[in-house]
Amino acid sequence: MSEELGPGGKKGALMELLKGKEREQILELFSSVEFCQHCLDAMESRGGEDEQQVVNPWVVSAKDGGKIDYDKLIDKFGCQRIDQSIIDLVGRPPHVFLRRGVFFAHRDFNHILDAYEKGQKFYLYTGRGPSSESLHLGHLIPFMFTKLPLVIQLTDDEKFLWKNLSLEECKRLARENAKGIIACGFDVSKTFIFTDFGYLGGAFYENAVKVQNHVSSNKVKAIFGLDGEDSVGKTSFPALQAAPAFPSSFPHLFSGKDDLRCLIPCAIDQDPYFRMTRDVAPRLRYRKPSLIESTFFPALQGENGKMSASDPNSAIYVTDSAKVIKNKINKYAFSGGQDSLEKHTKYGANLEEYAAGRMLTGEVKQRLAEVLTEMVERHRLARANVTEEMVDAFMKVRPLPNMFD
Amino acid sequence: MSEELGPGGKKGALMELLKGKEREQILELFSSVEFCQHCLDAMESRGGEDEQQVVNPWVVSAKDGGKIDYDKLIDKFGCQRIDQSIIDLVGRPPHVFLRRGVFFAHRDFNHILDAYEKGQKFYLYTGRGPSSESLHLGHLIPFMFTKLPLVIQLTDDEKFLWKNLSLEECKRLARENAKGIIACGFDVSKTFIFTDFGYLGGAFYENAVKVQNHVSSNKVKAIFGLDGEDSVGKTSFPALQAAPAFPSSFPHLFSGKDDLRCLIPCAIDQDPYFRMTRDVAPRLRYRKPSLIESTFFPALQGENGKMSASDPNSAIYVTDSAKVIKNKINKYAFSGGQDSLEKHTKYGANLEEYAAGRMLTGEVKQRLAEVLTEMVERHRLARANVTEEMVDAFMKVRPLPNMFD
Repeated sequence: MSEELGPGGKKGALMELLKGKEREQILELFSSVEFCQHCLDAMESRGGEDEQQVVNPWVVSAKDGGKIDYDKLIDKFGCQRIDQSIIDLVGRPPHVFLRRGVFFAHRDFNHILDAYEKGQKFYLYTGRGPSSESLHLGHLIPFMFTKLPLVIQLTDDEKFLWKNLSLEECKRLARENAKGIIACGFDVSKTFIFTDFGYLGGAFYENAVKVQNHVSSNKVKAIFGLDGEDSVGKTSFPALQAAPAFPSSFPHLFSGKDDLRCLIPCAIDQDPYFRMTRDVAPRLRYRKPSLIESTFFPALQGENGKMSASDPNSAIYVTDSAKVIKNKINKYAFSGGQDSLEKHTKYGANLEEYAAGRMLTGEVKQRLAEVLTEMVERHRLARANVTEEMVDAFMKVRPLPNMFD
Repeated sequence: MSEELGPGGKKGALMELLKGKEREQILELFSSVEFCQHCLDAMESRGGEDEQQVVNPWVVSAKDGGKIDYDKLIDKFGCQRIDQSIIDLVGRPPHVFLRRGVFFAHRDFNHILDAYEKGQKFYLYTGRGPSSESLHLGHLIPFMFTKLPLVIQLTDDEKFLWKNLSLEECKRLARENAKGIIACGFDVSKTFIFTDFGYLGGAFYENAVKVQNHVSSNKVKAIFGLDGEDSVGKTSFPALQAAPAFPSSFPHLFSGKDDLRCLIPCAIDQDPYFRMTRDVAPRLRYRKPSLIESTFFPALQGENGKMSASDPNSAIYVTDSAKVIKNKINKYAFSGGQDSLEKHTKYGANLEEYAAGRMLTGEVKQRLAEVLTEMVERHRLARANVTEEMVDAFMKVRPLPNMFD
């Protein structure tokens, strides 16, 4: 940037300036400057606090290597816990992911249940950022839980902005991921899959700009943990993940149904996007979407992180062979032992897990490998049958007249 | 934003915190915080400087009510003056706007002239933000100067983000402005007119994201004078004005011609967009666009501002009747006298202008009204013949095989 935009960072010169000033002059300077929220936050925290758990769409890490504290997340994000009273409202045998607490938090899920009881329609919206060729088991959670009618967003532009990948590669990964999603068994007459690079424009772009018009860059930075050196692509992107929560972004699907409710099943790390979306919605005179939010699918190494597409050893991919699965589980899956002989000799085993009976023994690992291999094998067969034409069919911008049947 | 995103401004609490601290502690705090460029700038200037002239795409105002200092603008922006040596390079009788210094600055215009001499092709790109129904005389400058082949961007999204207008109104104004532009006499076989809301997507969106990926939000704020409370729509928009400077944004026009040169005729207040564009281009391995930049068309009231679509009395519109033109010129046009009897009695006439012989006498005003009325009348007749179908034809995304003939 230097050639035409002039030099950056003037911190040093400013420090020199301040050193020549009295305490009162410095305070006066402080009080006369309109600091942005980000710098105010930075001054307030001054790097002095304990290492906290960090959960945002790009980083999931527990405090001091411990487990993710989901209660704390619910408090911090301001969503609600899915308790028995909500599950009772479902009024039919609840999905295993609800019974087992995989989906543990929500925002206005009860509104959807109420609407459902009254026979009102709604649509589901979920998605994925295509950062790797294959899906792993964690990615399947929302797709295994999600029913129809459904829109699925593949945020190839997000991955371009956050990962060091070419734009063409992001578009390719989105298509590959679409195949893995289709293999979960969706109905093409009730499902619209789209990529941002492929679909952006028209009503979708208009809604994105409407959202962008109501969110300041300070606010986006505060919500998503970005700073001023992050690209404007990153600060403008969240509006693109917000737009599909509004039915008017899909005129070919929901024309004349601007009041249709939207339910978003997602992992809790996506909450910041939809907190922002729900905050902006009333100002656009749009309905707030409802959310149902899952825990993270833990990394093989333990519950202090999530399976990550960027760390092959943390995850079982739907493309892994039986042999690879067995090897990953035996070598990496958390069983209280350390993940290398060296570390094991140095630190010993995690006896707390062992004592509580939660440790995975060799037998348990073997059974796990069998179950996963069968599941992955089934998915792999389904995926092998997904053709380019099928991807085109799911992605075609088309009316879906039977979407609500 | 309050409900879900928590309270804003913590400036007060921070000031309390600082008041309990010693000078050294405050300096230590300062040195440990990563301030953004915007806050560093704000601290450095602390609102203490003299009132400067402000020229950016949204504000044009001279220092202390004087005239715009174009030499200073050239220095500040880092563009080059169009001198006789450049005009000589044109190699044919130069356009009246070049001879008269209306276009007075450039960036790499000589590259275009060199290319032209070698028989290489290039395209022109200009545009307009549709903030009012009618064009005024200032708006016509680039369109009267511009030849073909040409792409014209109507930034309806920009006006939605900056002006208090509904999105539908911005789209309507863009179409009305297109009619006024078409009435200048462009050839539909060599001209592509597009609106952002209408055309964004595909290759154009891809280029916008590529630009957004390379510009930090601090940088955009510094270039365009935005702050953290401005919307992310505003910080992300400049990339949309950058994208048409790259031929790959128009695959239907320039497919396989990624190396085609682009020349942008515009008023100098648009320079920040293209300074940013030229800065990013090499990192995308794209050619930098060339620029040829005009002075502002002065407001009727004098040379300290420009004709503004938002101030009807500052401008002659192409839709003004002979009577309105005569009235505006007699009542508002700067002639050294004040613009009301009250002010005239209080301050007297501007004798400097009078003494220099630059004062417009009643006779001169009358001749001006005649010339403008004739010009506006001609434009009005042409505009009356522009149909909706013609607008559709200019805006259709289509190949233009004869664009370079």
